[in-house]
Order: sequence, then structure tokens, then C-alpha cells
Amino acid sequence: MAEPALALPPPQTRRAEDDLLALLMATRDLTLDLAAPLEPEDMVAQAMEEASPTKWHLAHTTWFFETFVLAPFLPAYRLFDPAFGYCFNSYYEAAGARQPRPKRGLLTRPTLDRVLGYRRHVDDALQTLLEAGAPQEARRRIELGVHHEQQHQELLLTDILALFAANPLRPAYRPARPRLAGRAPEPMRWLSFAGGVTPIGHGGTGFRFDNEAPRHEALIAPFRLADRPVANAEWLEFIADGGYRTATLWLSDGWDRAQREGWRAPAYWERRDGEWLAMTLEGLAPLAPDAPVAHVGFYEADAFARWAGKRLPTEFEWEAAAALAPVAGNLLASGALRPLAAAEPLRRRPRQMFGDVWEWTASAHLPYPGYEPPPGAIGEYNAKFMCDQHVLRGGSCLTPPGHIRPSYRNFLYARQRWQCSGLRLAAEAR
Amino acid sequence: MAEPALALPPPQTRRAEDDLLALLMATRDLTLDLAAPLEPEDMVAQAMEEASPTKWHLAHTTWFFETFVLAPFLPAYRLFDPAFGYCFNSYYEAAGARQPRPKRGLLTRPTLDRVLGYRRHVDDALQTLLEAGAPQEARRRIELGVHHEQQHQELLLTDILALFAANPLRPAYRPARPRLAGRAPEPMRWLSFAGGVTPIGHGGTGFRFDNEAPRHEALIAPFRLADRPVANAEWLEFIADGGYRTATLWLSDGWDRAQREGWRAPAYWERRDGEWLAMTLEGLAPLAPDAPVAHVGFYEADAFARWAGKRLPTEFEWEAAAALAPVAGNLLASGALRPLAAAEPLRRRPRQMFGDVWEWTASAHLPYPGYEPPPGAIGEYNAKFMCDQHVLRGGSCLTPPGHIRPSYRNFLYARQRWQCSGLRLAAEAR
Amino acid sequence: MAEPALALPPPQTRRAEDDLLALLMATRDLTLDLAAPLEPEDMVAQAMEEASPTKWHLAHTTWFFETFVLAPFLPAYRLFDPAFGYCFNSYYEAAGARQPRPKRGLLTRPTLDRVLGYRRHVDDALQTLLEAGAPQEARRRIELGVHHEQQHQELLLTDILALFAANPLRPAYRPARPRLAGRAPEPMRWLSFAGGVTPIGHGGTGFRFDNEAPRHEALIAPFRLADRPVANAEWLEFIADGGYRTATLWLSDGWDRAQREGWRAPAYWERRDGEWLAMTLEGLAPLAPDAPVAHVGFYEADAFARWAGKRLPTEFEWEAAAALAPVAGNLLASGALRPLAAAEPLRRRPRQMFGDVWEWTASAHLPYPGYEPPPGAIGEYNAKFMCDQHVLRGGSCLTPPGHIRPSYRNFLYARQRWQCSGLRLAAEAR
Amino acid sequence: MAEPALALPPPQTRRAEDDLLALLMATRDLTLDLAAPLEPEDMVAQAMEEASPTKWHLAHTTWFFETFVLAPFLPAYRLFDPAFGYCFNSYYEAAGARQPRPKRGLLTRPTLDRVLGYRRHVDDALQTLLEAGAPQEARRRIELGVHHEQQHQELLLTDILALFAANPLRPAYRPARPRLAGRAPEPMRWLSFAGGVTPIGHGGTGFRFDNEAPRHEALIAPFRLADRPVANAEWLEFIADGGYRTATLWLSDGWDRAQREGWRAPAYWERRDGEWLAMTLEGLAPLAPDAPVAHVGFYEADAFARWAGKRLPTEFEWEAAAALAPVAGNLLASGALRPLAAAEPLRRRPRQMFGDVWEWTASAHLPYPGYEPPPGAIGEYNAKFMCDQHVLRGGSCLTPPGHIRPSYRNFLYARQRWQCSGLRLAAEAR
Repeated sequence: MAEPALALPPPQTRRAEDDLLALLMATRDLTLDLAAPLEPEDMVAQAMEEASPTKWHLAHTTWFFETFVLAPFLPAYRLFDPAFGYCFNSYYEAAGARQPRPKRGLLTRPTLDRVLGYRRHVDDALQTLLEAGAPQEARRRIELGVHHEQQHQELLLTDILALFAANPLRPAYRPARPRLAGRAPEPMRWLSFAGGVTPIGHGGTGFRFDNEAPRHEALIAPFRLADRPVANAEWLEFIADGGYRTATLWLSDGWDRAQREGWRAPAYWERRDGEWLAMTLEGLAPLAPDAPVAHVGFYEADAFARWAGKRLPTEFEWEAAAALAPVAGNLLASGALRPLAAAEPLRRRPRQMFGDVWEWTASAHLPYPGYEPPPGAIGEYNAKFMCDQHVLRGGSCLTPPGHIRPSYRNFLYARQRWQCSGLRLAAEAR
Repeated sequence: MAEPALALPPPQTRRAEDDLLALLMATRDLTLDLAAPLEPEDMVAQAMEEASPTKWHLAHTTWFFETFVLAPFLPAYRLFDPAFGYCFNSYYEAAGARQPRPKRGLLTRPTLDRVLGYRRHVDDALQTLLEAGAPQEARRRIELGVHHEQQHQELLLTDILALFAANPLRPAYRPARPRLAGRAPEPMRWLSFAGGVTPIGHGGTGFRFDNEAPRHEALIAPFRLADRPVANAEWLEFIADGGYRTATLWLSDGWDRAQREGWRAPAYWERRDGEWLAMTLEGLAPLAPDAPVAHVGFYEADAFARWAGKRLPTEFEWEAAAALAPVAGNLLASGALRPLAAAEPLRRRPRQMFGDVWEWTASAHLPYPGYEPPPGAIGEYNAKFMCDQHVLRGGSCLTPPGHIRPSYRNFLYARQRWQCSGLRLAAEAR
Repeated sequence: MAEPALALPPPQTRRAEDDLLALLMATRDLTLDLAAPLEPEDMVAQAMEEASPTKWHLAHTTWFFETFVLAPFLPAYRLFDPAFGYCFNSYYEAAGARQPRPKRGLLTRPTLDRVLGYRRHVDDALQTLLEAGAPQEARRRIELGVHHEQQHQELLLTDILALFAANPLRPAYRPARPRLAGRAPEPMRWLSFAGGVTPIGHGGTGFRFDNEAPRHEALIAPFRLADRPVANAEWLEFIADGGYRTATLWLSDGWDRAQREGWRAPAYWERRDGEWLAMTLEGLAPLAPDAPVAHVGFYEADAFARWAGKRLPTEFEWEAAAALAPVAGNLLASGALRPLAAAEPLRRRPRQMFGDVWEWTASAHLPYPGYEPPPGAIGEYNAKFMCDQHVLRGGSCLTPPGHIRPSYRNFLYARQRWQCSGLRLAAEAR
Repeated sequence: MAEPALALPPPQTRRAEDDLLALLMATRDLTLDLAAPLEPEDMVAQAMEEASPTKWHLAHTTWFFETFVLAPFLPAYRLFDPAFGYCFNSYYEAAGARQPRPKRGLLTRPTLDRVLGYRRHVDDALQTLLEAGAPQEARRRIELGVHHEQQHQELLLTDILALFAANPLRPAYRPARPRLAGRAPEPMRWLSFAGGVTPIGHGGTGFRFDNEAPRHEALIAPFRLADRPVANAEWLEFIADGGYRTATLWLSDGWDRAQREGWRAPAYWERRDGEWLAMTLEGLAPLAPDAPVAHVGFYEADAFARWAGKRLPTEFEWEAAAALAPVAGNLLASGALRPLAAAEPLRRRPRQMFGDVWEWTASAHLPYPGYEPPPGAIGEYNAKFMCDQHVLRGGSCLTPPGHIRPSYRNFLYARQRWQCSGLRLAAEAR
């Protein structure tokens, strides 16, 4: 099993209209590279209802281009297979009926080979379209398709982790690399922010999803923010102090869920011979005490913060603080594939705002003032999920390069734990 | 079956510390009055998991005073029955184990008579405590207990409606009163608001729940708001236009729920011989076209707003607009027990902000900046429900007098429809 | 709370056609007597999906006479209330739609008073019909209605026990009577039977349900049968020996169910301060070691027999053995309302074949050779339940007098435990 | 995609002790042959909880030999992989913990290649054991393992059919072969049987499962039996006559299930453009009117029989009648892979008793008088499923040769429809 060579798309800063084809093809290639270490059999199975098979990711991202770019904009385009719409539509009501979500793992056909053929067919047509001079709306949708595929690159990895974690053999996605011995984390430092009216949302001319707009002003009260995420060693203290057994630390729905599902630790942690291990893309591995805790849900993150006498930051606080940090970090391109301990503290600046772990915020995923979803099926992309989901910020060690920015709003249900999600503490100003 | 004589507590404006006993007793009496039209058998049954039996409401509100006031503050107090804590604790983890919520309807014992004895026992002890000069914290908790009981007064009525609606005989809580013939509603008018930084949350010295505090500033963009809630006639247009069959109008979770449960109209509506009727506390009755639509959940309210090309207001917009309206309306004291058509339009002021129907807002039930729950079990009152619930504002025709105010935040899950909940449309400023 | 005076119907042996009215009225009165110790509130609640409220039993047995006797056979009969068909039909598809079974506890209306009026109305009409000379089919159906009501008399008691067992106060249906101290049971004795072709099924001219017919011959191999049911002391040994923790003793479906529901003892047993108690109609009471174990399901009974190196008897073996025993025992008329220890052993005859506990057999509830259900809705009485249910024989301490006979076939699902069900061991001939 | 070459094991009549190795290897090869037309991806997926992936069948049958033959009887044997016990134990509690049944489809590892290596490893060891002179118990268990694997051969095919039927592409297991045009079936003929005491159960010295023993006598009343199974054309009449909409034709549990799951036809039937098609191992195909109906559950079979004014035969009646028929028919070796129309009627003998479709009987799967399960884990093979399952007889078009006999008792839950199961009518003697 070779490990994936992470063919990087060109950095986003150099991206211009002429670069769109290069960006597209690099993105398409990276998806294949990420799937390369897997057996064809691994690509069929669906770990749980919320995850998808690798093969399905390969096909669905392709269907997205076919449906929203080629069918409407490439005149002579013929569908690769008319049955694929049913198979690979995810949730677009406007695009017709589809395979029920919990049954994606039953799609052993089309085979992987045929799905790879589908990818080539669509890639060729996209190239034809771009070389012939695609209209602006087509180019806009291709760019959306690239970012859509980047989201599925991260999902591909987290879904494979979920699959392998459910396998009694605990297989590794790639061989384990040498690791430094973990150390206790140095204490988190607290940064103070003044508050005031601050711009929120995407401001520049680069790509953004619709839920990052419109840019608007928000009023923030003075607050404090930890300079790094919560680390595994701190989470072990929470466990040792009865965090998972103390109802009064938890939101009501969270406590019910934790009891029903028997939560005793983050997802993928298991105790063997008195030691906590965690399932990773390199198989079962000891916990690194100084690395950010990952695979916690909102309920747990919130309970931890309460236990610590703190709270989660709002997404506005987070975004304001992120202005101080470079958009760089332990993202997919580092090749680590797991959260790493923070580097040395910075002077009055937060660390690890980008990469390592998605950070749960206290904010619900709601539309910004004046938000308008795009017209047509594309309008279903984010808008219909603006209910009872929670915003996460900053990207993770599995987020493809060029895919994260300060205004980026990821969102999940409070119960969900299979993404690489952690937390950073906030508090009122003193 | 006599109809309930609505014994009113003294108006809130006259309330002072010396009036606490009078307020308490008037509130306690009103609860009994509300139960008076029911048979003992009606008071046992639990219509659904989220509702509670009348007898349970009678006992739980009493348990609240016993547990949080008498036990800690009246030295010689002896529990009426030590087993009642298990029976009538609702959800306070800090107060110990309790009857599982879905099984409250199995508590045929203690009998109604014994529960009424429990009420008298606790009322007597409260009177003793107050007359002997209760400490301030005890008085604060008695006031909380009064407002807690007022919430259960409204629940008592909505839970009985749910019970009677599930009964094939469609019994009436009270005999029907004469009604004016319904008319088509006059068009809604739109009020424009300027936006800006505005104070939000409870400001005065009167009672407020913890989730209304702290008062703080919020930044609101200019917006427009309808001068009255959406009326039944308008909802019928939504139905006729396929509102319940058009997936793209709905939030994803809402559409799933609506399909699974076969929603075709608001809760309690049923079609007989081509006419829409609604189950009410006066039994099955024709719809009043000009009365506000009630018993819609957040999912439906949101879908309606999208269909209408509008949106729901945020709770901040609503609260800012409510400053223009008197805290008065068709509340429980009117005796109507159902939403009524709006009165004549007012000049540049909204109508029906208070009473008639609770109004769904676009806001999640989240803590205000700097929010701190009270210490101890009382801290569970609202804080642990600050997740995936939605704020409603303004009270309804079933809300007891003295129980509503501009800063009042009610909250429900998006799926819930058994409260008297409707909506008012909002839109961006032109 | 007075205890029920058990008004006995005339003994079945004296029953003749002219006695039908007396039998009917005595049966109708007994039902009311059984309900007499209850509060009206107790009569509303439904302990679980498989149980029914007392008030529903009172009304359903009345509906049975109205629907199958009065409506077709009393010319001028007017339905007491046309809505009652929907409310009180149990499962007769041919008799139309009905209140969903799990929601019988929501029928707080009609009130108890009105249901009692329904009973009087129907009783009067039945008297009119019989006095005027009812046709034979009407008399046949009245007799069926009597036996149907007797079944509901037993259900009324077991359903109340289920309700009170789910109540944290553990209320008693009647005050506890003095009890002899329990003793260890004397060892069970084994009776040998020769086998051969034996008649099975109801043979005489008296009443029988359709599933007891036709009488036919069955071939039985030689077998042995215990002379008494398994006693509580023996069940405690099974528990102590890990019976509930040893998968290999159990049928596959039984083990799954026991794990899922956390079975550790028979239904209604609970351990307090190291002692096993059982919930009874007299409230929580110590176990009598020498009384037959009750409230075990088929899965447990079968596992116990396997643990003991024995098996359950087939219903044919049981019926053949029952020919040696008088149709007498601790039935409802004894007033004990609980299983009692066996009397002195008899010479070559089994004890406690009738009364005390229903005895699970190894037989599935299947039609006898040549079985024909009656025509029309009455044909649904037993026939449609001839699938995946298990035969129990012999009646219990809650079975009304005149309601049991050697050929009587009761049936339940293997998982069900709320009836007064125990077991008797069988074995191959040596 | 090549179609499977069906390498036949030597006919059972020639089987002697020396032939065991040949039988074993032929059986092992046939399993591989049956899997040959599949893609590796097809072999991973689990169509539903009750089905298993092909790869799991390949491994589980191997685990059976390893666990019950090699580990106890081959001294130097080393487990191929100790983790495989957890992965591939099906339901043997005595053999330890195992992968939860609904999650067999998540076992993408071990890969197919590794499972094939497992098979070779175990095959080699079995050969070593047999060539070295295996003790009698080992040989007995090898024979059991052969018949166990034959059962999984049939399951492999039915589980693949379930998988492909859930795939919107409706893939074919093998290319369609030419078919004769279907014709209306000629009327079924009725054979009369005299009844009496008849031997039941396996009598000879050949292999039998434990649930076919002991041979014993049963008393059968005179009866009539149809000379062939019910055909598709007859089932279409049942549908046309409202069979799926008429509650009174159905057992109570069956009706509930049929409503809940929306049954309108046998499993795998679908209506396109007004024509009924059925999903088969050759893909979607028109119904053959004269072929036996397949993929009906017990509930439907029973309802059909009631509609036809007949009943299902008991397993004793079936076995008595089967004595008149040769153990031959459209089994797996015919290569048809689907039920075929009956040949010409025979004089006073039933047709199609073996092969084509498993025939539901009226009998519950219960132990025969004197039944003893084998000691140890092997005792779990059938014994723990003797509850609430129903006996089917005669094998199907997917049953491997040498695997069927008159005394063979297959068993399924009444709701199950994914096996190739049909029915034959019976009636009382005239």
C-alpha cells in the first residue's frame, strides 16, 4: 500500500481566470491520489448513515460537474450514463430522485473502473468547455465544483477513518510514520480582545460559499480567547474528573444522547490495558498529550468548556481573532493527517487558528443579515441546512490547501463526532 | 361542565413586595380554575411525550415550591410525601431521579384528591413562610415559582387541547361561545425600521427569567416588519399553492419530518366534507379566515415565509419593534382562548405583538453575551435548553396576564406544533 | 378502598339455556365488582401497548354485545353512541376502523359515568332480547360474549397490576391479607405417561372457543411430567446459577430480547436491601418460596427448563395429563389473587393443573386439523392470531370460575410476561 | 463477465468415507465458482441485516472448518489469523464475541485476496488432516461443514440477488439466457392421501441435520395436496382480486407488516409501463406465468391459501407426500437459477416437490419428540432457532445438488421474503 502523494493545486493567491483549468485538474487529481491507498473493496462500504463510500465521493463530485456545468453549458454534451443521476445526487431536490442516503453502500455497481471512466469522461468535457471559452456562469460553477470537491476530499478521509474504526482489525489508511514522544502541553495563554463593531463575512474577490455572505457588521463585546485549542491531556483531566458522568455539565439533549450511546471519551478513543489509544488514519495509536483533542461533538465541547469555567467563542469572536493569524497551519498539505501539538506561543497572537482541528463555536448556523441563496438547485447547497446545526471554524489537518479562509463556515449537528473537530476556549473580558 | 372563571392575579404594575402573597395565591387559584372544567379522568392522561397530564402540572408546580422554597427556607417544614420528588420532578438532574417523562400518564396515583391536598399543604406552608418574613432569596424564588406556574398554566391548556384532539370524540374543554362570521383579512401592512445599535434584554427591576439577561446592545440592520401575524386565509393560499408538497420551500430537516409525519396542514386542522376545521378548546370549529394561523411549527413557518418571498424576523428585530406596542392584547384574561382577528390597523405601529399567537423568530435560543445561569438546580431552568431550540416571542391567547413582556424569550424545537404558535413576516429594508 | 366482592356466576355444570340470562348478568356484575376498588383515574391509564385501561375493558366488552348481538338480532335497537364503535373495537377489521391500540389511554372521554351508562343500556337491551326469546345464533353469541368478558376480567386485573407496577408508589389494588410464612417447596415428583393415540380438543356440548376444535386424535410418545409447577425457590436457584447471564441456555430471539431489555428476574420482581420482592395486587410483597413462579415469559420458561435438564410439555401432553385432574384449583373465586403453594402431593396425579399460573407449553398456537374459523367478524376472534404465539394451559389465580377447562388454549407471544404465567417441567420417558 | 461453471460434487449415492475429501473439495470449489461472476466490490456489501456479503460467506464457511475441525483435531494447527474469529463467527455464543450482524458489510478488510488465502490455508490443513486419518468425530464435523457450506452457497446467491435488487441499475449476476415464451399454467390437480400413522424424520444412514431427527411416528388425517406449486399467473389473480388490500385474508401480524412495508406484490416484483417484471439473477425480467411464484413470505403464502379456500400443508403431510416423488428437480445443478414451469402432470404423483421453490408449510419449526441438540457450540446450529420460525420443504432452484432430501427442514421467519420461497396448496380430504 503506497501512501498518497499529495499533488498540490497551485496556491490560491496565484489563481486567475486562466488558472481555472489547472486548479480544476489538480483538484481532480488530488481526489484520486487520496483514494489511491485504498483497496477497491474499501471504496464501496458506508461506515454509517452520515458517511459515504469513497467510490460514491468519486462519482458524486463528478456528477456535480456534469449536472451543473456540462449539461447546461456544453451544447453537445451527452450524459455518461443517465442512471447516474439517481445514483449520485446527494440531496438536491431540484435535481430529482436519488438513492436513499443510508443505502449508498449498496451501490457495488457501477464498479470503480466505471466510475473512474466517468471521471475521465467528465474531465475531458470540462477541458473542452474551458478551452472553448466557457461563459462566466460556467466558470463560476466550475470554481464552485472545485471547492465542492475539496469538501469531499476531507469527507473521503473522515469517512474512511469511520469505516476503519468500525473494523475489528483497525486497518491503517497508510503506514504509521515516526512520531515524537508526546509531552504535556504548556498552559494555554489568554488573549484579550476589545470588542466593538467589526466586519464579518467574506470581503475580497476570491471564492466564497454563499453562507459567508453578505459581509456585514456585527457588534462584539470585549472577550478573551485561548491562544491554542484544548489538548488531549486536558481532555483526560475532564474524563478523570467525571466529565462524562456529571449531568449538570451538559446540555439536556447532549446528556440524553451521551447516556443513550454510552459516551465515555471522544469518538475513536479506546482503552486497552489501562492506556487510552485513538484510532487514526495510521491505525490505532497512543494519544499525544499535547496535540489538540479531536473527534469531539458540540455537546462534549460545550460540556468541557463549562467544566473549565469557560465557554465556546461565538463565530464572530473567532473570526475577529482570526484576523491576527496567518491562513496557514497543519492542513492536508502537511501530510501529517493528524492534529499536531502547537508550536511555541506567539506574542499576543493566537496559534493554530487554521488547520489541526475544526473548532466548534457557540454559534448556530444561521443566515447572515441579507443572505440570499443562489437561484435554482445550487441554492440548496447551504441554505436548507440553516437549522439546528452549529458553526465550526478554521479547517483541520485534513482540509485541502486553498480551501480555508477566515470567513469559512463549516457546520455540523451537535451530536456529530466523526469529523476532525475540537475546540478552543473563550471567556468574558475581565 | 362549567367554564373556568378566570380569577385574575392583581395587575403586575401594582405588584410590590407586600403583594407577593396575594400574587402567589391568585396564581395558585387560577391554576385550579383552569383545571375546573375537566373530569378527574381527563387530568390523568398524557397526550404525547412532550405534553403532561393536568394532574402532573398541578403537582409539579407544587413540588417546585416545596423543593426550592420550603425545604431550604422553612425550618420545620416536612415533606408532604417523600415519594413525590420522584413523581413530580420534571428535569432537574440536581434534584434527583424522576419518573421517566413519557410515563407521566401512568401516575394514576397519587389521586387528584391527594394532589389537591398536596397543593393546600404547600400553600399553607408558603403562607406561613411569607407571613413570618421570608428571606430575600426565598421571596425571589417564590416569585420565580409564580412565573413557573404561569408557564404551566399555558401548558395545561395546550396539553389538554392535544389530548382532546387525539380523542375521536373531539371533546370540548368548554362550550363554544358565539362567534362573529369570519371575514377575509385586510392586507398586511409593512413597517420600516431604521436599524442601529439597540438595547436588547430585560432592563427594569421587575421579574425576568435568566435567559432574558443580561441586557446588552445588539446591532440591527434596517428591516421591515408586517404589522400583523399571518392569517388563516393566507395559510390556505400556501396550502392551495402546494406549500406542503414543494421540497424546495423547506429546510432539509423540516422536509424530512413533514414527509415522515404526513403534514398537509397545521396541527389540529382536519378536512371534513371539503371544509377545513380546526380542533380548539371549544371543540372542532370552522377556521376564522382573518384570525392568525396557529399550531404551526418553525419548519412550516419558515417554509411559508420563503413561499411568500419574505423571512422570519430575528428576535432582536422583534424586540426592537415591540417597543412601539403596548404590552396588551388577546391574552388568557380575555377569555377568548383562541387567536382573534386583528383590530383596525394602527398608524406606524404593529398590531398583535402580544397575545393571540407566539411568533416564531429566526433566532436560535442561545445565551446572551455574558449570560450566567443561576447557581444550583435553578440553573437548569433555561440554560440546558440553549441548543437547537428556536425563540418565540409575544405570548398567546393562552398566556396568563402578567406573564408576558417585550424581553420574554419562549423556546421550542422546530418540529413542535402543539403550542399556540404562529408567525409574522419580516423583510429586508427596501 | 373496599375489596371486590366476587359475585360468582352460577357453576357451569348447572348452566342450561334458561340460565343464560342469569349467567350473563352475573358475569356483567363481576366485571364491575372487579373494577370497584379502583379510582376513576386508575381506569383511564394504559400501562403499555399490550395492556388496556379498565374503562376500555368495561366498554369494549359492552361493544362486543352491542355489535355482534344487539345490532343484528334486536330489531329496534339503537346504538348507544355511534362513535363508540371507533373507540372500543379492539381488532376486528370486519367491524371497521378503530382507535389505535397504543392510544387507548388517551380516551379520557367518554367518562366512566358514560361508560357505565353504556353498560346499563346494553344490559337492558340484552335482557329484552333474551326475554323475548332470542334466536339460537343470538344465544350462541351471548354465550361467546360471556366468555369474552371473562377473558377481559382476567386482563383487567393483569393490566392493573402492570399499571401499578409502573407507578413509583407501588399502589395496592386491595389491602394485603395475612399470609403464612413461606417454606421451601418439597421436591417435585415425576409422573410417567404411557403415550399412544389420544383424543385432543373439546369434546362435550358445553361452550368452547373455536381454537379448541375440532376434537381429533393425536399421537403422543411416552413422557414424564412434574406433578406441580416450578416454584419461586427453584427460580431463585436458576438466577443464582447465572441463568440470566448464560446465553447457551436461551433461544436466540430470547437472548436478544433479554439483553436488550435487561432481564435479570421475572417481571415485577425487584431487589431491595438484598431481598427479592414481587409486585402483586396487594402491593410489593416478599416472595413465597413454595408458590409457583409467575410472570415469566416463554423465553425464560424455556431457558429454565433447559437449565434444569428438562423441557416444556407439549399442549397435547398437558391435555392428556389434565384428564387425571379435577377442574378445580386456585382460581379467581378463591380470592387469593396470587399463586399459592401446592397442597400435599397426590398419588399418581398432578397437582395445580388448573389455577395458580398459566403454564407455558412447547406448542405453537396453530389450528387443529380441520379447523374452520366461524364466518364473519367473529372469525377474527382467534384465527388471525395463529402465528408465532405459544399455547398456555390451565388458567391462573385470576381466571374467573367457569372459564377454564382441559381443552382451553390460551396464547401469548414468547416475550410477554405480564400475564400470570409460569411453567411445569416435562421430560422424555425413561 | 463469465457465468459460473457449476462444478458438481459427486452424487450423494456414491458417497462413502473415502469420498469425503473429494466431496469436501468439490464443495469448496463450487463456492468459489458461484462467486466468480462477481466483482470484488460486489462481495463486500450487505444488502440488508439478514443477508451477508459474499466475502463473508467465503470466510465464515472457512472459519467453521477452522474452529470446529482444525483447532480441536489437527494437533499442530495454527489459526490463520486470530482476529478472524471475531470477524467471521456468525452466531455461536459458545465461540465468543463477534462482529455485530448488521455490520458485516463494513468488513472491507480482510480483503478478498486475504480471504482466498484463508480458504487455501484451511483447505490444505483439512487435506492434511484427512490424509493423516482423521478421527471419526472430525470426519463427522467435516461432513457437517460441507452441508453448512452448501447452505451458504444458496445464501450467497439469494443475498446477491437482494443486493442487486437494491441497486438502481438492477445489475445481472449473469447474462440472461434465452427463455421460452411463458404460457398460462394448466390447472393444478389434486392428489388425495389416506392419512394414518406415518414415519417422519430422517431414517437412513446418510447425512442429516440434527433437526431432522429423531425419526418418529406422526398421526396424519386424510388430506389433499396440489400436484404442483402455485404459479405466477395464479398470484396475479390474487393481486387483481385485492389480495394485498383485504385485511380479513391475513394473519394479524402479517397484515400489520404488509401495511407498514407497503407490500403490493412478492418481493422483487415491480411494475413498469403496466407490466409486472421481477428482479432475477439475470436482471429484471418478465414474469413467466406458468413458473412457480417465488419470493413470497409466509404471511403472503398463508393469505393466498385462504383466498383460494385452501390451506398450507403441514410439514408432515408434505413429507408423507414427498415419499412418492423422486429427489430430483430444478436444483442448482440445472443451471436455470430460476423456478421453471412444471413438466407434464404425472399420474397420481406430485410434481416439483424438490427444487424450483422452497415450499412454506403450516408447521412451526419445533423440535421433534425426543430431540437432543449436539453437545457444545454445534448444538447452537439449529436448536436455538426453534421458536417463531416456519418450516419450508423441498429446496429451490438455488439449492446445491446433494443438499436436499425428503426430511430436510429449512426454516425462516414469517416475514422473510428474500429466499426463493413459494407455496403448494393443501386441503382437507373430501
